[in-house]
Amino acid sequence: LSAIDELVGELARLPGIGRKTALRLAFHLLKQPEDDARRLARSIVDVREKVRPCGRCGNLSEQDPCGICNSNRRDVSLVCVVEEASDIMAIERTGEYRGLYHVLGGRLSPLDGIGPAELNLKPLLERIGQGAVGEVVLATNPSVEGEATALYVGRILSPLGVKVTRIARGLPVGGDLEYADGVTIAEALNGRREL
Amino acid sequence: LSAIDELVGELARLPGIGRKTALRLAFHLLKQPEDDARRLARSIVDVREKVRPCGRCGNLSEQDPCGICNSNRRDVSLVCVVEEASDIMAIERTGEYRGLYHVLGGRLSPLDGIGPAELNLKPLLERIGQGAVGEVVLATNPSVEGEATALYVGRILSPLGVKVTRIARGLPVGGDLEYADGVTIAEALNGRREL
Repeated sequence: LSAIDELVGELARLPGIGRKTALRLAFHLLKQPEDDARRLARSIVDVREKVRPCGRCGNLSEQDPCGICNSNRRDVSLVCVVEEASDIMAIERTGEYRGLYHVLGGRLSPLDGIGPAELNLKPLLERIGQGAVGEVVLATNPSVEGEATALYVGRILSPLGVKVTRIARGLPVGGDLEYADGVTIAEALNGRREL
Repeated sequence: LSAIDELVGELARLPGIGRKTALRLAFHLLKQPEDDARRLARSIVDVREKVRPCGRCGNLSEQDPCGICNSNRRDVSLVCVVEEASDIMAIERTGEYRGLYHVLGGRLSPLDGIGPAELNLKPLLERIGQGAVGEVVLATNPSVEGEATALYVGRILSPLGVKVTRIARGLPVGGDLEYADGVTIAEALNGRREL
């Protein structure tokens, strides 16, 4: 396999990148200044070397605990539960949320073989057990799996004496939190209601 | 800047990749096995280290002269002139063309400041001067700039006693050779006519 074919193959493995786009990107990388291509390669290696999940909340960060867990300007009594670390970035962009996070690392999806045991719930239960958490906002995606996950997590948390809320259905049903605009996400956070 | 922001910035510089797609790709690279991410980074560096323009035709290749120039199964009397090396791959995919190539490295585009001096024409004139070339097929894109480039190159070549043809307008006008399907490209090659 030639170096170009090799690169096209690797690029085509990325989500949403087909063979023609991969080919176009490969030729772009060959045409632009060599430093630019090297910087992209370096960034990919860097991100894998430096970025790790936060031991406390699961956020992807270069520090452990992450900047959000470590901040003394956040409301430690409020924990927002999300499916993936990328959802944290979407919520942070709104600038409307001042609490902490917890990343489940997925959502209940029987068809994909993801059951309750696959969700990262234990650290959240431990945190609640320590007593500082007053409210948990369930911000899983407004999809069928996300709703099921929220219901399941809510049922686990309700006996623990903590207030459990769900972000409002301001988000388009069946959509993906990562793609929603900031105003919609902020609306959904403000309109959260007790489960 | 964090490593994630850095990577998102580099990815967003690629053509057709916006900030949201870049973010999605960055998180994908963080989620997939580390080896996959490293292989992509390695491929980018490799392609820049190994692939160079062929000294004879300008094709991007790991050998110089490239595999097409070096092949003894190609018709050396036929030279196909293309705008970019990526167009060669599009034509080769049809399996219909058995001649050699010449890459102009662009097309006439006064608005972008690309005039006749910016086109890589000298090596083609030298090759024709050596006498082996009987026909030159102009396969620049069927766009306004591509047509202008074909007309210009045709006018330069016609006094040299070589047959000059233009690929047929089987390609959708205003389109891009790189995106055309193989059958259309093959049709256009077969239907070429003398300028």
